[in-house]
Amino acid sequence: MIATGFTGAWLDRADPVRGDPALLDAALADPRARLMRLENGDPAVDATGAIAWTSLADLEGTPIFLGLDAEQRPYFAETRAGDAAGPARSGALMRMLDAMPPGDAAIFGTVRSVTGWHARNGFCANCGAATAIIRGGWARACPSCGTEHYPRVDPVVIMLAEFEGRALVGRQAAWPAGRYSALVGFVEPGESLEEAVAREVFEEAGVRVSDVRYLASQPWPFPGQLMLAAIGAAESDALTIDAKEIEDAFWVTKADVRAALAGEADAKFLPPPPYAIARTLLEEWAK
Amino acid sequence: MIATGFTGAWLDRADPVRGDPALLDAALADPRARLMRLENGDPAVDATGAIAWTSLADLEGTPIFLGLDAEQRPYFAETRAGDAAGPARSGALMRMLDAMPPGDAAIFGTVRSVTGWHARNGFCANCGAATAIIRGGWARACPSCGTEHYPRVDPVVIMLAEFEGRALVGRQAAWPAGRYSALVGFVEPGESLEEAVAREVFEEAGVRVSDVRYLASQPWPFPGQLMLAAIGAAESDALTIDAKEIEDAFWVTKADVRAALAGEADAKFLPPPPYAIARTLLEEWAK
Repeated sequence: MIATGFTGAWLDRADPVRGDPALLDAALADPRARLMRLENGDPAVDATGAIAWTSLADLEGTPIFLGLDAEQRPYFAETRAGDAAGPARSGALMRMLDAMPPGDAAIFGTVRSVTGWHARNGFCANCGAATAIIRGGWARACPSCGTEHYPRVDPVVIMLAEFEGRALVGRQAAWPAGRYSALVGFVEPGESLEEAVAREVFEEAGVRVSDVRYLASQPWPFPGQLMLAAIGAAESDALTIDAKEIEDAFWVTKADVRAALAGEADAKFLPPPPYAIARTLLEEWAK
Repeated sequence: MIATGFTGAWLDRADPVRGDPALLDAALADPRARLMRLENGDPAVDATGAIAWTSLADLEGTPIFLGLDAEQRPYFAETRAGDAAGPARSGALMRMLDAMPPGDAAIFGTVRSVTGWHARNGFCANCGAATAIIRGGWARACPSCGTEHYPRVDPVVIMLAEFEGRALVGRQAAWPAGRYSALVGFVEPGESLEEAVAREVFEEAGVRVSDVRYLASQPWPFPGQLMLAAIGAAESDALTIDAKEIEDAFWVTKADVRAALAGEADAKFLPPPPYAIARTLLEEWAK
């Protein structure tokens, strides 16, 4: 399997603990228990760039049970008023992620997604009442209508259209100057991953693709997507850009992509960062 | 690509129409416009088993714009009080789906997912206020805090563990007697598709898998999942069943699966129905 960003967490999520109040209480009472705290969505890190865990003595909010390590030591995060609710990332966080061990980044990503979901979901979508955290931080229950709510994961397709040895890259207006990447879009109700790839490439660039091949996946914690990377065969290289979706798109050769990934001075574009599956997708395609 | 159930819709979703009130009004005023109505979550069908479309004269609720056919004819569904909110399926619907043309089933699935989502999401999860339908039925907006909400699609992994030429099938207690299928579970925040496969097979059956290979996907409209089918290599065939998750599981050979798919009298299990990707997964594995 292809290694992707935000994967490789070194904790067993230990789902049975979440649903068992006695096991949860025992984990919270374990003197070895560790806590991750976020400030404005960013974790504290130590001198090596790894997560700087603290103890439950620092717990201020509601605990979220993250799992157990190989020695059965329990790990927690917490939800607090003022948690980052949205996808915005600080510049400091992006530099942290460049240096963070992959397994730590995966656990941070989980925490960022779950705490952001709690921050955006304090009320019952079914009846409007305020909800309460249950299952060790992995769900919310409505005291009024009884509905249980689980953290949302949005499947997103991210893809290269391929035509005669070239691949299509595009950019959004909000991105850093020169950055180009794979096209991207949310999977909608009633379509497969493969159908979503074909729909999005046509909507954004006017290119029909078929023979969609899945490549790899990664979780994306800003705020909570499952990125599904694929390559599709284009019928033509004629482009019709939808300016509401992307600012520009163009076809690149494998040599173009290799130059961009190597950071060469005369590269045709700046590639996505190392922890983004778009970069993995470009790397695999250009091999 | 592998054909799966609930795919192959013959409508262009025409996303720009959703966000443009003038285009939406023109579609609603088109005398050729077609309407799909559900009763208790079931569609009306004609003598051939195809969707029996009606006209917008029958519209009672709020229209949902489904898209345009090759002649640019607009198609709609509607949300009404009393729409089926949950995953329950009638026996009549299951018989309908066996006979329905695949492209019609895909459009029905989209409608069932979107109408069910509206039925469960009348209030803002961020602030508790009642929300209103926008974007031609494809989103809801909160008049109080301004948050926009989009129909939820839950990614779900469905998988076979494979060991020395045999595959693992399991059953849930609520299923029809004799039915066995692939194991299944929701993808959680902070994990990849491949990690979710490994976690779920271990949680449910105590089997460690690696080398997870994606096979195919399908939307599942009860109530709104994206099913991601995969095969993983098991390290062992020793089972530790989690009785909270599954009632039973056992290893089957390709001959066992072929006998089950063929409906042979002495088959070891009853397979999933034709429109379920679990069946596609078994068919592909047993080839």
